Amino acid sequence: MKKFEEKTISSERIYEGKIINLKVDEVSLPNGRTSKRELIEHPGAVAILAITPENKIIMVEQYRKALERSIIEVPAGKLEKGETPETTAMRELEEETGYTAESLELIQSFSTSPGFADEVIHLFLAEGLHKAEPGAVLDEDEFVELMEVSIEEAEKMMQDNRIYDAKTAFAVLWAKQRLSIEN
Amino acid sequence: MKKFEEKTISSERIYEGKIINLKVDEVSLPNGRTSKRELIEHPGAVAILAITPENKIIMVEQYRKALERSIIEVPAGKLEKGETPETTAMRELEEETGYTAESLELIQSFSTSPGFADEVIHLFLAEGLHKAEPGAVLDEDEFVELMEVSIEEAEKMMQDNRIYDAKTAFAVLWAKQRLSIEN
Repeated sequence: MKKFEEKTISSERIYEGKIINLKVDEVSLPNGRTSKRELIEHPGAVAILAITPENKIIMVEQYRKALERSIIEVPAGKLEKGETPETTAMRELEEETGYTAESLELIQSFSTSPGFADEVIHLFLAEGLHKAEPGAVLDEDEFVELMEVSIEEAEKMMQDNRIYDAKTAFAVLWAKQRLSIEN
Repeated sequence: MKKFEEKTISSERIYEGKIINLKVDEVSLPNGRTSKRELIEHPGAVAILAITPENKIIMVEQYRKALERSIIEVPAGKLEKGETPETTAMRELEEETGYTAESLELIQSFSTSPGFADEVIHLFLAEGLHKAEPGAVLDEDEFVELMEVSIEEAEKMMQDNRIYDAKTAFAVLWAKQRLSIEN
């Protein structure tokens, strides 16, 4: 898939951070003109659609500094070096929610902002949920509030923008289709 | 929605670009500790789910430098200063596809990468499509290939990752639900 390829003429690294890097590439367009591309490098992330036996979706409310508000999302976390997406998903599910899953299945991988970032999110379906042992330690610098949300509640949260991010909106629609097929 | 608010202690502007800016904020966490947040400012964008009378979705294939490949997306474009999302959506639909719409309806607004970016995409349903007059000029520095895709084809494109971004994946699921209700 190289149609309309933009070839890199030069690349300037502006910032290397803890989570993201920024570079500005000069590219040649298919018509021979040149343009600049401001590009964010991100390690990628996983998100987990965890559905309880009662057909509720496990969600977390957390503050998102970029938005200056808290929103309600499916559990997620960025990929760490050397981890497979499956390993990250299992770890993040347990760290953020205290649940473990018997099985994980990849639903979809998608780029979040293809116009400027290489971040890809791998969304997994987690089934066979078990609450971890009492005393399991959640990540102490993560401030999240756990909740279990029905499809109807999740749709209402989308309408009033308490659910407000693309991966969670996708997960809710996907869960609705899945549960309507099963029931 | 200020739960678990992270208060800004200081903010350093690293880069101001054509489309995105980068700043690094030092924040105080709810437990009193401090942390850094690397934050991208983006003007926001619109995306358009345009469904033809034959129940096909208008898509565009374009090269995405951030991913170093071309992907198939619903038409989209960033908000320009002073434009409402509706105006941007009408303009982008015509510029990218040559179609105009009789009506636009907001389906959902969502943050694309709440962990590091403030970008919000407003996804509209466009109905009553008309092909613009022959001779209508498309944006000359945009290299996109137009296509009309059935729901079944779109689902297959999601499976083989030719459709590979969150807004388009959401739009396909939404269109599937809408058309299954209508038919």
